[in-house]
Amino acid sequence: MLGIDPGSAATGFGVVERRDGKLHHVAHGTLRPPRDASMASRLSALQAALEEVLEAHAPEVASIEQVFVARGARSALVLGQARGVALAALGARGLTVHEYAPSRIKQQVTGSGRAAKTQIQRVVKRLLELSRTPATDAADALAIAICHAQAGPLEALGVSRRRSPRRRGSGPVLHVRRAP
Amino acid sequence: MLGIDPGSAATGFGVVERRDGKLHHVAHGTLRPPRDASMASRLSALQAALEEVLEAHAPEVASIEQVFVARGARSALVLGQARGVALAALGARGLTVHEYAPSRIKQQVTGSGRAAKTQIQRVVKRLLELSRTPATDAADALAIAICHAQAGPLEALGVSRRRSPRRRGSGPVLHVRRAP
Repeated sequence: MLGIDPGSAATGFGVVERRDGKLHHVAHGTLRPPRDASMASRLSALQAALEEVLEAHAPEVASIEQVFVARGARSALVLGQARGVALAALGARGLTVHEYAPSRIKQQVTGSGRAAKTQIQRVVKRLLELSRTPATDAADALAIAICHAQAGPLEALGVSRRRSPRRRGSGPVLHVRRAP
Repeated sequence: MLGIDPGSAATGFGVVERRDGKLHHVAHGTLRPPRDASMASRLSALQAALEEVLEAHAPEVASIEQVFVARGARSALVLGQARGVALAALGARGLTVHEYAPSRIKQQVTGSGRAAKTQIQRVVKRLLELSRTPATDAADALAIAICHAQAGPLEALGVSRRRSPRRRGSGPVLHVRRAP
């Protein structure tokens, strides 16, 4: 399962897999096209790097954050450009792309829909038993992949939002207490 | 010379060449990814179609409209996604992408910075001696290519931007700043 967090300056990616009913970390990283290159060069570099990630890990499904445009049209355009490149790369491999609202991802992973970036980093590190704290973009991408791993199967069964208690054997429940 | 007019529903392209000191039409068209497919599929279809156009016509330079975000962040995001795919495809072929303001393109091609779509279609048809009026997206793309063909040479001579001359044989400069 691949999570992608596209951005104009940096795009995070995170790959997790479910094995023996448990989520395992596979890979994560941050793709940073050269800053001083033209936009076309940067976007094609991003595309090439994403294709490498897809080639290396051959995910079966991909997830991405829904965008609620808040910060103005200019930044929405620039974000859209990186997001378009990411979506096209995923689509070219025939991957289904699931979208989750930011608050939903935070809720699912940390237990709080308003969790701070640092809290997401901490929780992702602990859940996936990483030796180091991932950078924010990569941590967000891992959180998206985790969110899909947890929420996806239920939605596929048509259960969707208000969740009934999870059944045994359906994977770990990633319920995490809120930081005091 | 390739002109591109990216859009979420339709992306126009136009190819012109200069021969014997005169502009000639080479090709134009409108790329319309399937409407009912997912965004990822549509964007990858757009990417594949653009790559075909680039393969078929091997342009030496590309031009695109500058975007002045006016219509709200939501449409800027969606437009940005298509635009990002187009820029990445151009960048992947090592093409330099020139950007022109919409008013400049209209001024250059029709003589009026506020020309209507239909006027652009008429003028492009006449300038390139087309037997049929091109559709609006393709006409806009041809207008962008024409604008670059007419305006570009002056800028290439250093008339417009402040640009220091490149040194021969110096290769790319990897300017790295140390963190403070």
